[in-house]
Formats: sequence, C-alpha cells, structure tokens
Amino acid sequence: MASGYNVGVVGATGLVGQEFLRILEGGGHPDLPVATLRLFASERSAGQRVTFRGQTYTVEVARPEPSLFRGLDFVLTALDDHLARVYAPAVAAAGALDVDKSNAWRMDAQVPLVVPEVNPDDARRHQGIIAGPNCSTTQMAVALWPLHRQNPIKRIIVDSYQAVSGTGKAAVEELRAQTADLLAGGTARAREYPHQIAQNVIPEIGGLKDGDLYSEELKLIEETRKIFHVPDLAISATCVRVPVLTGHSEAVHVEFERPMPPEEARAILAAAPGVALVDEPARSRYPMPLDAAGRDPVYVGRVRRDPSHPRGLALWIVADNLRKGAALNAIQVFELIARNGWQAGARREAA
Amino acid sequence: MASGYNVGVVGATGLVGQEFLRILEGGGHPDLPVATLRLFASERSAGQRVTFRGQTYTVEVARPEPSLFRGLDFVLTALDDHLARVYAPAVAAAGALDVDKSNAWRMDAQVPLVVPEVNPDDARRHQGIIAGPNCSTTQMAVALWPLHRQNPIKRIIVDSYQAVSGTGKAAVEELRAQTADLLAGGTARAREYPHQIAQNVIPEIGGLKDGDLYSEELKLIEETRKIFHVPDLAISATCVRVPVLTGHSEAVHVEFERPMPPEEARAILAAAPGVALVDEPARSRYPMPLDAAGRDPVYVGRVRRDPSHPRGLALWIVADNLRKGAALNAIQVFELIARNGWQAGARREAA
Repeated sequence: MASGYNVGVVGATGLVGQEFLRILEGGGHPDLPVATLRLFASERSAGQRVTFRGQTYTVEVARPEPSLFRGLDFVLTALDDHLARVYAPAVAAAGALDVDKSNAWRMDAQVPLVVPEVNPDDARRHQGIIAGPNCSTTQMAVALWPLHRQNPIKRIIVDSYQAVSGTGKAAVEELRAQTADLLAGGTARAREYPHQIAQNVIPEIGGLKDGDLYSEELKLIEETRKIFHVPDLAISATCVRVPVLTGHSEAVHVEFERPMPPEEARAILAAAPGVALVDEPARSRYPMPLDAAGRDPVYVGRVRRDPSHPRGLALWIVADNLRKGAALNAIQVFELIARNGWQAGARREAA
Repeated sequence: MASGYNVGVVGATGLVGQEFLRILEGGGHPDLPVATLRLFASERSAGQRVTFRGQTYTVEVARPEPSLFRGLDFVLTALDDHLARVYAPAVAAAGALDVDKSNAWRMDAQVPLVVPEVNPDDARRHQGIIAGPNCSTTQMAVALWPLHRQNPIKRIIVDSYQAVSGTGKAAVEELRAQTADLLAGGTARAREYPHQIAQNVIPEIGGLKDGDLYSEELKLIEETRKIFHVPDLAISATCVRVPVLTGHSEAVHVEFERPMPPEEARAILAAAPGVALVDEPARSRYPMPLDAAGRDPVYVGRVRRDPSHPRGLALWIVADNLRKGAALNAIQVFELIARNGWQAGARREAA
C-alpha cells in the first residue's frame, strides 16, 4: 500500500480544477493523501506552472489516451461536456477512477451519480467513472435528503439565484468588466451570456430542452430523481443567473408525505452531514452567497412553514458552487472510495 | 369643469415622486390633464426647484394639515408608512383624493387597494384614500389576474428577485458605492441593508412578521388576496434583494382549478391589459429587469407547464418597480376616478 494516492486533474487550470487543488492543499481530507500529482489542460494552458504544497508542477498537455493516465488512482475531469465524453473513458481504461464533473455522464445508467452525504452506496457499483451532479443539484440534495429520509418528499419547487463562476473564468471576467464599464459611464458588452449580466438577472441557464425548459432546470429535476432513487419525484425549477461572483442560492418549497414542522426540520438539518444551519431571521442571520464563498458546507436557513400547503416547508439553501457544487464533492467521492476500498484506480487494475 | 386637474405630490423628491412626474410629463395619460401642480417634501428637500413641462415649481414644506391640500383634486402620497398614516387622512380631509403608495393603508378595510387592470370597481367605494399595492404584488396581480378570470387560481408560489430602487435613493447609492469600492479593491460598507448587497443576494425584505416571514412576503400574500377578493388564496413567497438597480423579477408557480395549457395562458396574456408577453426562449427572449426599467408594461415570459403539478403553470414576471410598481399605478388610479367621476377630489367636496 502506497503512502498516498496518485491523483490527476484534467482541466487543472479551470475554476473547478483550481478549487480542487486549493481544497486538497488546505488539508482536512485525511482519507485522500496525495503521493503524486499530475495536472493536465488544453494545449493553450499546458506548460503553466502550479504550486501545490510548496512543490511546483508543470501542467501537461491533455490527450484522451489511456496511456497518459496509467499509474494514477484518482482523476478529476473538470471539462466541457464534449471533452468529458472522451476523457472519462480514457481515464477509466487506464485503470484509474474518474470523477467527472460535467454533464456528459450523469444520466448514464452505467455511471453512478454520487453525493456522498446522500447516496454513497451508489458509488460501489462504479465501472471506472463516477459523475458528480450539477452544482445547483448537489446543494439541494445535501439539504433535502436528511428531511426526505424522515418524511418522504412528494414535490419540490425551486427557484435559483446562480453565480457567474458556474459558467467559468470568462464569465467571471465578463461580470467584472461589465461592472467597471458601466461604472465608468460606458456600455456593457456581452459574450459569455446572451445579455448583460451586470445589474441584471437572466432566466436562462444552459441550452433549451424539451421546448420550454433550459438544461439547468432539467438537470435539477433529473439528477435529483436519480440521486434520491425516486424516478417520478415531482420537481419544478426556474434557474436564474444573478450578478454574483460565487455562491448559488435557492428558494425551495417542499411538500412532504406528512406535515413537517419547522422545528423538526431545523433539528434534522442541524444534525445533518455537510449542512450548516443559519436561521435567525430576527437577527438578519440567514445564508448568503457572500458568506458561503470559499467554505465547505451547504448553508440552510429561512426554514419555515409553507403557508400555502398543509404539508409544506419553505427554505433557503446556499453553497459555494465551485466547492460543494463541484470540487469538494469530487474529493469526497475519492475519499469514500478510498475508505471503502471499492476498487480504486490503479489498485483496481492490480487486484 | 376645469380644463385639467389640480394635482399634488407629497414626497415629490423621492424616487416614486420623481417617477410620477416623469411619467406624467411624458404624456400618454389623457384622462389626467394637469391644470396646476403642487409639490411637497420634507423640510430637508423643500425649496428644491423641479421643472415640469417647461415650468419651474418650488417644492413646498409638507405638513399633515388639510388646509395645505385644499383645492387639490388628486394627491399622490409617496412616503414612509409612519408619515403616510397622518398625511393620507389630511389629504382626504381637504377634499382631495389621496392615492397612497405606502403600506400604511393597504389592509385597512375602509380603504380600497386597487390595481386598475384587476379590481377597478373597488375604487368606486373610496372615502378619500385609495392604496396602491406593494410593487412586487402589483406586477404579479396584473399578470395572474387574466389567467385567474379564465380558470381560478388555487395556489401561488413566488420567489422574487428585487431591485434596490424599491428601497429608495439611499439604497441605489449604496449599491453604486459598494460596487465602486469593491472594484477598487476596497471593502463595502452596508447601511441601508443589513449586509453588503453588491455581489450578493439577501433573503430579507422588510421587517420580520409572524416569526418567520419578512413583511414583503406577507404583503405579497395578503395584498394579492385582497385585490383578487379571495381571502384564503394559498400563497407562499420568498422575497430576495438582488444587486439590480431597477426592475423586480418573479419566478412564479401557479396551480389552477383546471389544467392551464401554456398555449392558452400565452393567448390570454398576449391580450391582457398592461401585460407584454416576451416568450421566445429558443431565441433567448424573456423578460429581464434591464429591459423593463423605464417602461410601463408588466412583462411575462418563460410560460410553461409546471412539470411538478397536473394543473400547474410556471412563469416569469418582470416590471419596473417604480413605474407599474408604484407611480404608474397611481396615475392609472387617478385616471380611473377621473373617467368615472367617482367623486374625485375637490369636485367631491363641491358636489
């Protein structure tokens, strides 16, 4: 047994790749000791130097070839969907375990879609690829699952307030540039989004699906059903981009099988893994993206009776979309596999 | 019959007062010809000069005394609640018709709460004061009422994305200042809001009521019930402040008595007074605060089946919170009274 794992990141210079390295470097993940680290990116970014725990790594050119990943145990692929479609199988073919954060594999019946706080056992049946859910799905799943376990959820209505970092580096830069241009009395130019995002909100995230839902809305619906193992769970979502850098917020209205008193929900949430309850509305204490950015927990507040339904509960869920929404969840999946020895990476090949 | 009405504005230098004058000046309201105009504000703002249709007016010091308003027909009071409580009765006692935009009178059983597109007949029984609803209520009422008339609404879930101009001038300045300070690498100071609003969203609007709802949420519930004449209408709301200057947005999920096909809803909305349908999601066309600012209509888009309910419809509603949300609605109420001769102002006294 090595003293640590051989870890790779494909898309190492992107927002999620960088967050992954930042979290690992920060410690607090003893089940994922790193023996060696290899970083990959497109030709454009390859050659960049990245410092990790005092050591300098040169970013290698990524190619979707198994030989490139040979010897690695755990690989995060943080890529666009079309790239993830070819990279994840290449990583798996090399004998490593790939955790993919794109949308490419999430709904594949052969690929587990895992949030460790919710459905860790699904990870057991991986065949080299485990998908992480979309950022807005992950935080909602972490917050609602402990409630669902006590009292089955029959319906979820969720409206989101999503940060630009979910779109990537260029979108973060676009919001900054637009803000500066408007402040200087100029006009804002939009490239990453179909419209100006500074001083605006845009009810379009992802491409249009099924004629009237955008893909982010469909992801929230389909991924939650898969993670919860409730294929017909009733879910409705409106996903909205807001001029916030990091941290997705969600206004959520839930109907349960039986009444769910807010006090009971708060007690469950206060004890739930991965959840931080911030719920003192009289003192203006509730979750906000500004407070969630850079932190691990899924924050939940505004827990209250939904006055429009006898078995309803309303709540407000906020998390760092790059952390729990992507990079942290991947680390937790690796830790889960490492802890349980569910045929992790190169060890799987050796077995 | 005079060639026009004697119109007064109390709170003439505030955001709503200014918007009121801007709309009137722009024309398009033939039923409210202005013969004389009188402007009132606090001592701090009194003495300011305001130009209206080429004529200069000096802002007078407001005092809650009927004698001050004698001879006026129509008066808008755009004041904080505690001031509106004393000013509206003073205006009414002077024989003028007061339209009050504050929260002070809305739920008073003696005071009609009127959105002309929805419940014009309620205005008929005024006793000198007519209240305009809260901005977030007004736009939702305009959009949902035509649907409700065809197919009764049983439940509304609404989550809002509200602009800072709803709070007033100081809040607009605070967002601008915070944005500039953050851009310059400094820190943001919060005074108007309990937290930084730039690059953030805050799920608190108004004071805490009933232990777990903020007043903006309670207003949406209670005012909609009163305007729709459905005292037990099931409504749930989460109201959220977003870093947008002008234009409130609302993600709305509605349950009807019978199924409401999206095509039918679109046809109804396309023909509805005060509504502009903007609904081509494949072309990234939907309502946004940036487009709604400075315009009259209540914009509706993202009209679609709510996949979580057999009789559900989801939609997205945006309007200029200062226009239809406040100043324009007041003008429309004055026009309504003027058209119908329902004992308007000084004419009421004379009658």
